[in-house]
Amino acid sequence: MHLAYLAPEPTVTQQAAIRRFGSSLRYFPQKTINDVFAEVSKNRADCGVVPIENSTEGVVTHTLDMFVDSDLKIVSQIVLRVQHCLLSNSRKSQIKKLFAHPQALAQCRAWVQNNLPRVEIIETSSNARSAELAAREKATAAIAGQLAAEKYALNVLEFDIQDNAANATRFLVLGRQCSPPTGHDRTSLMISLVDKVGALHRALAAFRRYRINMTKIESRPSKRKAWEYFFFIDCDGHMSDAKVAKAIAELEQQCSFVKVLGSYPNTE
Amino acid sequence: MHLAYLAPEPTVTQQAAIRRFGSSLRYFPQKTINDVFAEVSKNRADCGVVPIENSTEGVVTHTLDMFVDSDLKIVSQIVLRVQHCLLSNSRKSQIKKLFAHPQALAQCRAWVQNNLPRVEIIETSSNARSAELAAREKATAAIAGQLAAEKYALNVLEFDIQDNAANATRFLVLGRQCSPPTGHDRTSLMISLVDKVGALHRALAAFRRYRINMTKIESRPSKRKAWEYFFFIDCDGHMSDAKVAKAIAELEQQCSFVKVLGSYPNTE
Repeated sequence: MHLAYLAPEPTVTQQAAIRRFGSSLRYFPQKTINDVFAEVSKNRADCGVVPIENSTEGVVTHTLDMFVDSDLKIVSQIVLRVQHCLLSNSRKSQIKKLFAHPQALAQCRAWVQNNLPRVEIIETSSNARSAELAAREKATAAIAGQLAAEKYALNVLEFDIQDNAANATRFLVLGRQCSPPTGHDRTSLMISLVDKVGALHRALAAFRRYRINMTKIESRPSKRKAWEYFFFIDCDGHMSDAKVAKAIAELEQQCSFVKVLGSYPNTE
Repeated sequence: MHLAYLAPEPTVTQQAAIRRFGSSLRYFPQKTINDVFAEVSKNRADCGVVPIENSTEGVVTHTLDMFVDSDLKIVSQIVLRVQHCLLSNSRKSQIKKLFAHPQALAQCRAWVQNNLPRVEIIETSSNARSAELAAREKATAAIAGQLAAEKYALNVLEFDIQDNAANATRFLVLGRQCSPPTGHDRTSLMISLVDKVGALHRALAAFRRYRINMTKIESRPSKRKAWEYFFFIDCDGHMSDAKVAKAIAELEQQCSFVKVLGSYPNTE
């Protein structure tokens, strides 16, 4: 089996993929989220892995936006605990510059403000890149994982600097076909509302009526018209369950657009 | 009047502030969104301006997150059209590297993929920084506004490269006191739900009952517990309007937490 995953450099997405799939298949690192979707769509990979949400920083908007035009299905999810460290070859008091990816920085914002209030922050394109830059320049530090410390010969000055100790990232496995029900599933869908007072409330009534637990709702700009939104909804159950199927049918009556992104085991 | 605004360097936030307030007051540029909130909270500025949402890229999550712990009120909004340009001193066919702020890049993603599919993309901390870097190095380009082209002596190779021609950014003006009703207002609030099936649907029923148009809903991680969310809701009307006040009272019955962030004129 061929698997495409997001990896400008060794990343947590790769870690997530290995945790789920082990070393029994061939991995194809991709530079962008678009590329992961393209590899799977074009049959060059059997499935793909992309980050979708971090428990502190929220959704990866780019991944959500990809589903608007893609017909790929979500076939499973992977949840990975994320630990950020402060890496440097200087002492903490000597640090003048901090290299950090915007997402990593967002997850450690309170810690950085309390511990390094006066350092200059330089945003980078990945945690690995942050470590690489910190290794090159004196009086600098990076936010990255422990693996990067080894790779770039940096010291770990502080472990677990993320603001929420239980910081975790959820990844989606993308495929071309739906997953069968397991009895413990989650369904992801996207809808677009008619422009009327109470439209969202009326749409959500479908979940209420069939007592389906909605675990998540996200809105994203439609990009077609300013201030027009798509809603991404996760709920318990499989799309082939009678009550989920009925709720989706009702949604299709209420909404101007409904797309089921997939049903997949609700495991961590 | 003293006004604090987000400005690591000349930015669209400053442009937005000037458009609203002209040159009749004293401007205090701030390095981070946190600093803008702090200046106003600590009485060092009378009001502050921060970006909240772009019509293509969605919310500025950092600004939303600041309202969790802040008691500042939203006193008005400013909507500004955003035009991105491709700036370079090389020809388009010679460009090997593109400097871009992640938010600007996200707003021009389709254009970049179609027009510069093979260039290396380097993320920067601001549009001004992108322009500065592109001015220094041959065979590079930047995504930035037209003003940056003048400042850094770069040519505008292409105007309006954002994916949505009507690309606009909405800014909030922060103050310590609520704005009086004008008859054409919007109210922003944040809520946190009880952990029960149908909790969101039940909460939104308040808006439905009083026929209040909900114009927006965003979810953000609570950062207190993994996969627990706050919802940010915008609706038509002023918090002192009878029906809005009743809906808020009902929300307070249904939700574990409700905070009114402000009511302000719903003008562009």
